[in-house]
Amino acid sequence: MKKIKIPDTMTVVVLNSYSGADALSIEQRPVPTPERNEVLVKVVFAPINPSDLATLTGYYGFKNPTPIVPGGEGSGEVVAAGPGVMASYFLGKRVACTGWGTGGGVWSEYVVKSVKGGVLSLNKSLSLEQGAMSFINPLTASAFIDISKKGKHKAILLTAAASSLGKMVNRLGRNEGIQIINVVRRDSQVDLLKTQGADIVLNSNDEEFEQQLHDACHKTNTRLAFDAVAGSLTNQLLKAMPPNSKVTVFSALSRQAVQASPDLLIFENKSIDSFWLGPWIRKQNLLKIMLLWKRTQKQIPNHLKSDIRKIYPLKEVKEAIRDYTNQMTEGKILLKMS
Amino acid sequence: MKKIKIPDTMTVVVLNSYSGADALSIEQRPVPTPERNEVLVKVVFAPINPSDLATLTGYYGFKNPTPIVPGGEGSGEVVAAGPGVMASYFLGKRVACTGWGTGGGVWSEYVVKSVKGGVLSLNKSLSLEQGAMSFINPLTASAFIDISKKGKHKAILLTAAASSLGKMVNRLGRNEGIQIINVVRRDSQVDLLKTQGADIVLNSNDEEFEQQLHDACHKTNTRLAFDAVAGSLTNQLLKAMPPNSKVTVFSALSRQAVQASPDLLIFENKSIDSFWLGPWIRKQNLLKIMLLWKRTQKQIPNHLKSDIRKIYPLKEVKEAIRDYTNQMTEGKILLKMS
Repeated sequence: MKKIKIPDTMTVVVLNSYSGADALSIEQRPVPTPERNEVLVKVVFAPINPSDLATLTGYYGFKNPTPIVPGGEGSGEVVAAGPGVMASYFLGKRVACTGWGTGGGVWSEYVVKSVKGGVLSLNKSLSLEQGAMSFINPLTASAFIDISKKGKHKAILLTAAASSLGKMVNRLGRNEGIQIINVVRRDSQVDLLKTQGADIVLNSNDEEFEQQLHDACHKTNTRLAFDAVAGSLTNQLLKAMPPNSKVTVFSALSRQAVQASPDLLIFENKSIDSFWLGPWIRKQNLLKIMLLWKRTQKQIPNHLKSDIRKIYPLKEVKEAIRDYTNQMTEGKILLKMS
Repeated sequence: MKKIKIPDTMTVVVLNSYSGADALSIEQRPVPTPERNEVLVKVVFAPINPSDLATLTGYYGFKNPTPIVPGGEGSGEVVAAGPGVMASYFLGKRVACTGWGTGGGVWSEYVVKSVKGGVLSLNKSLSLEQGAMSFINPLTASAFIDISKKGKHKAILLTAAASSLGKMVNRLGRNEGIQIINVVRRDSQVDLLKTQGADIVLNSNDEEFEQQLHDACHKTNTRLAFDAVAGSLTNQLLKAMPPNSKVTVFSALSRQAVQASPDLLIFENKSIDSFWLGPWIRKQNLLKIMLLWKRTQKQIPNHLKSDIRKIYPLKEVKEAIRDYTNQMTEGKILLKMS
């Protein structure tokens, strides 16, 4: 077994209160030791995702008492293993790791993770850059397509469609014969998605937006929307779709309450539910998840690829977040741990 | 066959635009003639329901071009029948009639109705006053209990609970062992419902309302709310209930858009759907509806009784609506046709 020199201390990003990037600090902490069924991962890359921004402002579903280490996913190498066969199995392997399970987030040079869901082996063909983004967006995109197919939807509506996730849903949808009606906020995003092969892309700031959306939804019989924006846009989606439609809210980029006209709910039998990746995964059986993970890994070089715009060293995390917040749709921002 | 003298003209209430009671007028019109499978009903009583108020302001799900005759339900006697065995069967019978099917609303001295759903025979023991209100509220209350039992709910949340419908849901719920958490807007309504035997009645204008509602919902594991108010109250209901709960919106007395925090939807797996009596009935099989109607008729003298506050002659419809709008929870207002 290869023996790697592990330092005593490591650099971590710490969130000191749920008040955004200004509440972040860089600290030195002891490198933790893995217990039974745990491994120590030397993290290499971690993306900044919308769910990370939500975490920083206390808007995410998990809200442990501060200080916390943020970071929902990343990639790295397993450099030490606690007792247990599974832990030994991972030793030396390149892995994707999630911010869930034991231990905190991954914006840290080292992190201890449970082998039960905290780490997943990466395909040899995948770079650590792409591997760092192989969990949240690719599995979410796969879940959306899975849900759409189960509901026999030939067309779905998607907001914030120029995001990394949005592009994945478009590529997967084309591959599976599901039409995506894309909603974005800027003309440049319309052009971007059309260049990448999207058929229908609507700008919600266009004067004719509501009519265009209505026509697109009725022409394609679109009865399911995945909404990342919330606020009044949710009501526009409900209004545009034919009777018996549903909006599935999965994020709230507008940070506004969902709006819904009672007459659309009552007299057109429309409804609102939600999607959250963690509970969705836990509802699937293990075999399905393993198959999904294998298929996802294979598709990352093409349908599920993330564009990378810039890589920042961990210590420049605040600048990286500012950069990402200003421009979320032209490629991902990665943090590099060391 | 008893021959009843039918006049040539009749008094009807006409809504000339969807702008409320001020847009109503009293007109004389020819008495219509029933065609095949239709009957002519001499209407005796009709209540004013919240759905009638919604109709007057264009807020209801059906919105035919004005002028229309409003009135969602009523009672009377079948005085003429068109061709067809079913139509003959109804001749001379006391019936409840609905505003649906052929013909318009029932705020009229005579109305033609289809025998396929437009009229239903009344039990001999029922007064025409109670018979006039035997359809919308009793069937809605029965549907709520039916839905609750199907979902294995031992407790449900109900807003506008001091309404005629609310009182029925309380009585049926007690009979079926389903706890009702009642939400009202005034202390006098709290007293009223408690006098009638309700256990839990909360005033949404109470300073401690949110905490009280949270405690009540968690103590009773209430995961289903029937909401007649909409607006920000819907979000308060969502917030108060444990994870995996649902608000079913069935009216919008606040005339406000439904509000819902995305974090409650996403991170607590809460959802919003709706109830509308017409589609609910159409989804059931005919046998179930006939049994429900029979059972409902039997329960009208006790669990499904409506209190009557005042009876107005048809020509005083505007005053009747004003009176009802000012005080919707202390008994129904009926119109008497002649």
